[in-house]
Amino acid sequence: MSFYSARVCIIGSGLIGSSLALALKQAGAVADVVGCGRNSATLQRALELGIVDHYSTDIAVAVQGADMVVLSVPMLAMREVLAQLQPVLQPGVMVTDVGSAKQSVIADARAVLGDKLGQFVPAHPIAGTEKSGPDAAFAELFRQRRVIVTPLPENNASDVARVVAMWECVGAIVECMDAEHHDHVLAATSHLPHLLAFTLVDSLARMDESHEIFRYAAGGFRDFTRIAASDPTMWRDIALANSFEIKQMLLRFQHELEVLQHDLETKDAQALFERFSRAQQAREGLQF
Amino acid sequence: MSFYSARVCIIGSGLIGSSLALALKQAGAVADVVGCGRNSATLQRALELGIVDHYSTDIAVAVQGADMVVLSVPMLAMREVLAQLQPVLQPGVMVTDVGSAKQSVIADARAVLGDKLGQFVPAHPIAGTEKSGPDAAFAELFRQRRVIVTPLPENNASDVARVVAMWECVGAIVECMDAEHHDHVLAATSHLPHLLAFTLVDSLARMDESHEIFRYAAGGFRDFTRIAASDPTMWRDIALANSFEIKQMLLRFQHELEVLQHDLETKDAQALFERFSRAQQAREGLQF
Repeated sequence: MSFYSARVCIIGSGLIGSSLALALKQAGAVADVVGCGRNSATLQRALELGIVDHYSTDIAVAVQGADMVVLSVPMLAMREVLAQLQPVLQPGVMVTDVGSAKQSVIADARAVLGDKLGQFVPAHPIAGTEKSGPDAAFAELFRQRRVIVTPLPENNASDVARVVAMWECVGAIVECMDAEHHDHVLAATSHLPHLLAFTLVDSLARMDESHEIFRYAAGGFRDFTRIAASDPTMWRDIALANSFEIKQMLLRFQHELEVLQHDLETKDAQALFERFSRAQQAREGLQF
Repeated sequence: MSFYSARVCIIGSGLIGSSLALALKQAGAVADVVGCGRNSATLQRALELGIVDHYSTDIAVAVQGADMVVLSVPMLAMREVLAQLQPVLQPGVMVTDVGSAKQSVIADARAVLGDKLGQFVPAHPIAGTEKSGPDAAFAELFRQRRVIVTPLPENNASDVARVVAMWECVGAIVECMDAEHHDHVLAATSHLPHLLAFTLVDSLARMDESHEIFRYAAGGFRDFTRIAASDPTMWRDIALANSFEIKQMLLRFQHELEVLQHDLETKDAQALFERFSRAQQAREGLQF
């Protein structure tokens, strides 16, 4: 199924929303992109970069004539944006999002969209970099990346297919799953690692000799902590939006660290070797 | 000070020792490199790759005619190698190492080198990749990388200067510090991150749905866990050789995770935001 839209409205000018706009344009899949957000300077920058063709800070103005509205704002802003969207959302216009946690935005939509709930198809492109904002955007961001769509019982199949087609036309590999499972999987491979990286860098930065410690950091540390340069607002929101699953994963990891601490304490060479070997084999088996 | 050696003996055919051999050759700083190790097949491979010019599995044979002996074996093999080296080490021949922890190898040297202790100048090139063995070696590995030399009171200044000169001639930035401080700093920026990456990957790999979880891993996870593909033997040895400092750092990190878990539990948005912001600023300030 191919995708074409006369006008897409992108709410939020971050890396994901801006990259989607560029990708849809590059694919010839959209005639016109309208930007919407609270910050005029950022929207103006998106206009200068050719990401949007026009913009408005007024959501009622921005969605006029759009047949697809994409919410790409931090998780905790979703409910407010959906609430503003609800009264001006015309029949037949679709809404989707790019949020990194899905149960939370679905709860928001259920709370405020009323009988327009079926027009909202939740989705999450598993793509990004540690950079933020329209200047970091690029059209190739979604190529060969996975996008998870978590349809609602209220969605009709053709609307879900249209969101799938939009992501496929920018090069993504799209799969559907339920929102709970999505949040569980992403807590493991994305949310927990980000929180660990933030916590390690913050912990070292607050040590008295932090300047000297960082001075001797090498390539391993650079790669391990790259995600700690990610946007703090976005990650505060993800941490809170998916806190249940993240807490479970973190608890599991804390238990593993207790075992590790014990293995170091007892100098259990065999246990350390087995742990590192299993990890090495698992990591080498991964395809990216 | 420039460096030249008629013959360097490299004990161990791993990434670091092999890369040093290639780098010294590329710099025209060595006439002849002798390989030494337990595994003939690996030494033969190093010969084929032009890393060593000849080799022996007998340390007494390998060190003949060498004026510089470089120990590049896993940490827990250091004492045995030093013990084998002691009776065949001629006056005026220097010994250095590339171990990632320094107090442990210094204790080994003190235990077995006797009155030849002053010939050993401990050092650690902070360089490497997640790959291992002679096939992963490359001459440029040490360019613009830091090498820390931790001299002994028994060393004379000209011997220390010679080790410094060797590393400078392959492009490294060399600094001296005491071994205890080295082990503290490296526990923070290298040893703890490696152990966290191994532990996370192992923990996820042992989950029932590990195959599916890894399937949705993206670029952030790839970078965060790259170091988990490192050699398990080497890291078992580092974990044990520097266990005191690593345990302290790990304990500190475990405490930070308890605070994080509490912040998630109480949904403390401000605390999460401040933590992530401090980390982001610290990480963005780092130069690599």
